[in-house]
Amino acid sequence: MTHAQGRHFLQIPGPSPVPDRVLRAMDMPVIDHRSAEFAELGKAVLSGSQKIFQTSGPVVIFPSSGTGAWEAAIVNTLSPGDKVLMVETGHFATLWQKMAVRFGLDVEFMPGDWRHGADPVAIGERLSQDKSHAIKAVMVVHNETSTGVTSRIAEIRKAIDAAKHPALFLVDTISSLGSAEYKHEAWGVDVTVSCSQKGFMLPPGLGFNAISDKARAAAKTGGMPRSYWDWEEMLKPNASGFFPYTPATNLLYGLRESIAMMLEEGLDHVFARHKRLAAATRAAVEHWGLEVLCQNPEEYSPVLTAVVMPPGHDADQFRKVVLENFNMSLGAGLTKLAGKVFRIGHLGECNELTLLGALSGVELGLSIAGVPHRAGGVAAAMKLLEDRTNANLANHLKIIKN
Amino acid sequence: MTHAQGRHFLQIPGPSPVPDRVLRAMDMPVIDHRSAEFAELGKAVLSGSQKIFQTSGPVVIFPSSGTGAWEAAIVNTLSPGDKVLMVETGHFATLWQKMAVRFGLDVEFMPGDWRHGADPVAIGERLSQDKSHAIKAVMVVHNETSTGVTSRIAEIRKAIDAAKHPALFLVDTISSLGSAEYKHEAWGVDVTVSCSQKGFMLPPGLGFNAISDKARAAAKTGGMPRSYWDWEEMLKPNASGFFPYTPATNLLYGLRESIAMMLEEGLDHVFARHKRLAAATRAAVEHWGLEVLCQNPEEYSPVLTAVVMPPGHDADQFRKVVLENFNMSLGAGLTKLAGKVFRIGHLGECNELTLLGALSGVELGLSIAGVPHRAGGVAAAMKLLEDRTNANLANHLKIIKN
Amino acid sequence: MTHAQGRHFLQIPGPSPVPDRVLRAMDMPVIDHRSAEFAELGKAVLSGSQKIFQTSGPVVIFPSSGTGAWEAAIVNTLSPGDKVLMVETGHFATLWQKMAVRFGLDVEFMPGDWRHGADPVAIGERLSQDKSHAIKAVMVVHNETSTGVTSRIAEIRKAIDAAKHPALFLVDTISSLGSAEYKHEAWGVDVTVSCSQKGFMLPPGLGFNAISDKARAAAKTGGMPRSYWDWEEMLKPNASGFFPYTPATNLLYGLRESIAMMLEEGLDHVFARHKRLAAATRAAVEHWGLEVLCQNPEEYSPVLTAVVMPPGHDADQFRKVVLENFNMSLGAGLTKLAGKVFRIGHLGECNELTLLGALSGVELGLSIAGVPHRAGGVAAAMKLLEDRTNANLANHLKIIKN
Amino acid sequence: MTHAQGRHFLQIPGPSPVPDRVLRAMDMPVIDHRSAEFAELGKAVLSGSQKIFQTSGPVVIFPSSGTGAWEAAIVNTLSPGDKVLMVETGHFATLWQKMAVRFGLDVEFMPGDWRHGADPVAIGERLSQDKSHAIKAVMVVHNETSTGVTSRIAEIRKAIDAAKHPALFLVDTISSLGSAEYKHEAWGVDVTVSCSQKGFMLPPGLGFNAISDKARAAAKTGGMPRSYWDWEEMLKPNASGFFPYTPATNLLYGLRESIAMMLEEGLDHVFARHKRLAAATRAAVEHWGLEVLCQNPEEYSPVLTAVVMPPGHDADQFRKVVLENFNMSLGAGLTKLAGKVFRIGHLGECNELTLLGALSGVELGLSIAGVPHRAGGVAAAMKLLEDRTNANLANHLKIIKN
Repeated sequence: MTHAQGRHFLQIPGPSPVPDRVLRAMDMPVIDHRSAEFAELGKAVLSGSQKIFQTSGPVVIFPSSGTGAWEAAIVNTLSPGDKVLMVETGHFATLWQKMAVRFGLDVEFMPGDWRHGADPVAIGERLSQDKSHAIKAVMVVHNETSTGVTSRIAEIRKAIDAAKHPALFLVDTISSLGSAEYKHEAWGVDVTVSCSQKGFMLPPGLGFNAISDKARAAAKTGGMPRSYWDWEEMLKPNASGFFPYTPATNLLYGLRESIAMMLEEGLDHVFARHKRLAAATRAAVEHWGLEVLCQNPEEYSPVLTAVVMPPGHDADQFRKVVLENFNMSLGAGLTKLAGKVFRIGHLGECNELTLLGALSGVELGLSIAGVPHRAGGVAAAMKLLEDRTNANLANHLKIIKN
Repeated sequence: MTHAQGRHFLQIPGPSPVPDRVLRAMDMPVIDHRSAEFAELGKAVLSGSQKIFQTSGPVVIFPSSGTGAWEAAIVNTLSPGDKVLMVETGHFATLWQKMAVRFGLDVEFMPGDWRHGADPVAIGERLSQDKSHAIKAVMVVHNETSTGVTSRIAEIRKAIDAAKHPALFLVDTISSLGSAEYKHEAWGVDVTVSCSQKGFMLPPGLGFNAISDKARAAAKTGGMPRSYWDWEEMLKPNASGFFPYTPATNLLYGLRESIAMMLEEGLDHVFARHKRLAAATRAAVEHWGLEVLCQNPEEYSPVLTAVVMPPGHDADQFRKVVLENFNMSLGAGLTKLAGKVFRIGHLGECNELTLLGALSGVELGLSIAGVPHRAGGVAAAMKLLEDRTNANLANHLKIIKN
Repeated sequence: MTHAQGRHFLQIPGPSPVPDRVLRAMDMPVIDHRSAEFAELGKAVLSGSQKIFQTSGPVVIFPSSGTGAWEAAIVNTLSPGDKVLMVETGHFATLWQKMAVRFGLDVEFMPGDWRHGADPVAIGERLSQDKSHAIKAVMVVHNETSTGVTSRIAEIRKAIDAAKHPALFLVDTISSLGSAEYKHEAWGVDVTVSCSQKGFMLPPGLGFNAISDKARAAAKTGGMPRSYWDWEEMLKPNASGFFPYTPATNLLYGLRESIAMMLEEGLDHVFARHKRLAAATRAAVEHWGLEVLCQNPEEYSPVLTAVVMPPGHDADQFRKVVLENFNMSLGAGLTKLAGKVFRIGHLGECNELTLLGALSGVELGLSIAGVPHRAGGVAAAMKLLEDRTNANLANHLKIIKN
Repeated sequence: MTHAQGRHFLQIPGPSPVPDRVLRAMDMPVIDHRSAEFAELGKAVLSGSQKIFQTSGPVVIFPSSGTGAWEAAIVNTLSPGDKVLMVETGHFATLWQKMAVRFGLDVEFMPGDWRHGADPVAIGERLSQDKSHAIKAVMVVHNETSTGVTSRIAEIRKAIDAAKHPALFLVDTISSLGSAEYKHEAWGVDVTVSCSQKGFMLPPGLGFNAISDKARAAAKTGGMPRSYWDWEEMLKPNASGFFPYTPATNLLYGLRESIAMMLEEGLDHVFARHKRLAAATRAAVEHWGLEVLCQNPEEYSPVLTAVVMPPGHDADQFRKVVLENFNMSLGAGLTKLAGKVFRIGHLGECNELTLLGALSGVELGLSIAGVPHRAGGVAAAMKLLEDRTNANLANHLKIIKN
């Protein structure tokens, strides 16, 4: 029996729920994109975005999805035939690799099992072998949205440095930025790719590139034929708060508001909250006797948790039961994980009670769908959250670590 | 440590959360209240309200709180010095009684322990004694918002009839209408009082009176000096969709939408959902080893559950812990229950996962506040909701009965 | 041929168009009306309202229409049988008088021609004759919404003082407050009545009473049976930002925003803008060769202009032509003015271009409806507005004076 | 003296004002873009868009600006080195030409004076000379937003056909679609480029390509390296209502609503309304004694009117005066027209009274800025609109023709 009353629980790993404050900020008349009033908005979102990417360098904002921002990173910095090193961390890394191939790049795709992040050691070794510096870029996904596995970006940076390799470092933070700790500048990333509909808590429609000096220099002399995605065309009018073509004004209203919300909470608190909610989710999953797809505790995603279905049970059938009975959307398994995992998003404006409501829906859904599990997962998650509050918080965070 | 990120859980027994559809319907330019376009709106909400009150007779809508609708019921039908029979079911019944006294009514206030509804037998007996028919009205609160106890309106009607007493029957459905089953006409109520911010899922600002022929006749020849609240002044322009003074137009936009939502779900489904959520809440409370304030299972409220704090523990301190740690508002104990109970609202657009999130917050709060309880209340609530889904629903509903 | 595309021009003298900022402020989740967060809202709107009424004394806010605020003024201060002096300035003064009669007041209603404001001299003379001080209150409408005529409140106050008469002074500023200059305290008014949907630029649903010490004292010892409207019941919880019954929370969100907008513009600028727009409107009307209903230039309303139709032409037929052809609502003539005048509202968020668009619609409508007039009214209004800008403003304001 | 109270008049030729209905439709929670509910939305906007482009073939919708849709048209159908024929109708045609050059096309850019549309005869002659069919595409801007001049697309199609030339026909309808008559299929266009923020009355953020069979076939075998803009990648999931990457969901909510509004009004009525408003605007401009930039009455734009400033007067200074005094944005002259023209947008939800308000602001601004002109332009516009209503409409439309 289907019923879909009340508030929908959108627990996919993005788009994440848009806070009322952000929706309302967007619900205003559009303004002249060549006016002084617009320039204030433009400057506010451009400098605000730098704070979120943690960089003093430029961030460009495209009216596009995150996929467009992937493309922008490629066409500005690389040329057809360029060799690049990518890592198969999951579905989205694979899509980015396919895009790179479409643009004529010579992609070396390090295979992966979709349960681990990119291996800094392996990357370092591969680069060390590349004496001729044929590899022009290393391209890694920070948080694989399809698997709930993160890659250790700071360690990969160190590996590149240790190999004394000049390759550009391009990182996809589409689902991590604003939810998981990320430092574009301190971590020495050359191009960071992101979008609006995850940690930024906005509807889809904006793509981002944070750009290092090295990347910008590379773009000035190289890259592919481009126009829409061209950084320099963006950066010229950006300097005075404007854009080279009509920007997605109302999404920028929302962006200004969501950046304000993140800074009000404090980025450190935002990151700690996501870690805490992710830990609670894993506590539930483990209690249920189900398996978290991610196999390396150091690489657990604070953004989403992918859960492996027991053999003989279809994840999509389970998701259907949950949607119809409890008005909650969970993420599907993608391509080779289709039917085998479901994904619980716990990002953006998610808080403890929203998460516990969501986990309740998962546990109830497991029962109703007849999926074998041990009852009490929600209680296990509550226990973790309660300890967090009762115990010394700093201590606690040290323990859960991720 | 305080944190208030993410969505607020508004679990007071009203105002209840306003659905996005309703908020958005209200977020439109105001129109000319003397225009044809307005008349369509007026007719839609007036006839729609009849469906919710389950009456073919008139419903009047005031720009007021529910308190104003209480006043309207009194000043239209009763005269100073009139004897009325009221029942002390709790804080709100007491407030209505005070209002009646202020207007010079001779109130006989049947005492109560705030843990039971109005007693149909006692009312019947009292009326039977009133041979001279001095009692002009019986005034009862259907759902005592301060206690989570309902009164059995249909049975009280039968008791009045059995006593062959001509008193008017005035019923406050401020917190029940649209959440708990209620039939103005079939149950023979003369004036039903309600408001916008509970079952109607609207912001506060509208008061309602559903009126029987008998009540209307009484108003035509009696009542007190009145103007704003005068029914006949309302009913004249209402016939063509208009109002005698400027109506709260944007709240009426919202009312049109909320009525549509209730009818889309079906009133029977709305009522069953509330019963189910209330039963789940009580399952949690009982598991925690706490006491539900309401002592008669036949009178459990589908709208809210008032929970008695263990001796030595302050309910308001507990509520503070919950608000600061989990961004959830619970209802306070009022007047003689202050500090002794807290109230969990589960009305309006509440659904399973919202409720389970809320109950999780209560259970976590009990731990953090050091209130003795048995862990596992949320699991007990889940069990009940799961059974509901797995078992034959009709059968199940028969069992929980309330 | 009917077409109603594009933005509706709501040019009735209230409800006035609600600015987007105000609508959006209201379009937010309702909060617990007993929370600390609410108390901040409550204090903000209560103290903000004092600034708009220009008083250091209390302002109470009812969930009601302005009609309710009329009733509150009466039932708090006067007793059945009390003699009051009212002035027939138009339809709304007449309605207020009828209300007073309903509550048993002995109303002396000074007749008027609906084309002039209340006469300070006549009021002073009448009070001087009342040696026994039988008259308990003088009740005047500041801006007659039905006629576009203001009454000179400060002068009436002086007349009362000159007569050394102790009567309370009750003033209806329903359509003037926030648009026309008004000073509750400096002008010695005892009760000022107002509402949300005119100068406050909000949807209907809030009624206001600003209260002098003298009025409050009178209420403590007198007045009529009352509950909902009782000032003292309001003022007790208001002291800490709360209300005695559920307030219209979302309208209060809007009120906070609209007060902020008025103070940002500056009340003096708000008043000057309304005067300027009204002068421009009259310039158009005079050029058309039509008659402004108000006959005393000192009493021209800055809020609306009522225009007399030439004999043989029906104002409502004209308004219909305008609505159907130009998607604009104009105000109807009321009761004895029905069909004889139409009213142009130019209040609230109205600005020059909105007004000129509206006047264009009137001029076009006159042509299409075949109403004799001299073309060029819009041009005349533009001339006045242009002069205002080109000339020395201060000088100009001195000239137009009203 | 600056004042910016009341509603802003956004009279630039796009983004156009977003109707409240559309803004509110967008102000809703984002949904799972892989859900059945989303598929309904996707199908609705895809099939609805076909009605607006007047085609039975596919329309693809990108999360992008119109500039992105330009790029999509190029990279799907053309290859580096391909010869294309473009026409210099103004600033935007020049930008599109620059983009084409960036992508390595061999652009033959027929020069123009920015005061006429593309010449069908000249295009026909040029194609006739191209015996080898070296020209792969003819690329024309339907409505030059920088000049207010339209090109006669149907006639150009006939010229191509008469020359028996196989070139693809690519047309930019960025500012015309949904405002000026346009028939993708009947007029034999191969790729029609458009966007959300003009006739669709949406905020910026969506780009469109309507695609003929011939264009699609060309894309399958040719075009440039591409990913984000690839039609086939879009069309596969579009068939079931989905998108290959996260779509701009909330803009799609708005698109569904704006298409509904256009179809409710009727496309013919939409086009007639724009013609009427444009004719009224030109009547004003001509009366002022100013020059309309467009020199061929057959090519007047129904979307905007560019007005030539008298020598010695700066258009941007004038626009500043208008913005500061009357809270209205007008469009600037671009590149070689900078300072020499201003542009009045009269598109989207514009109606008679909004336009007359806007023209009043222009006329007042001319006075205040000291720009020589003959007063009475607004009256001239009113005369035209009045005649339209009074006279036989069909007849009138025949006369104004454009």
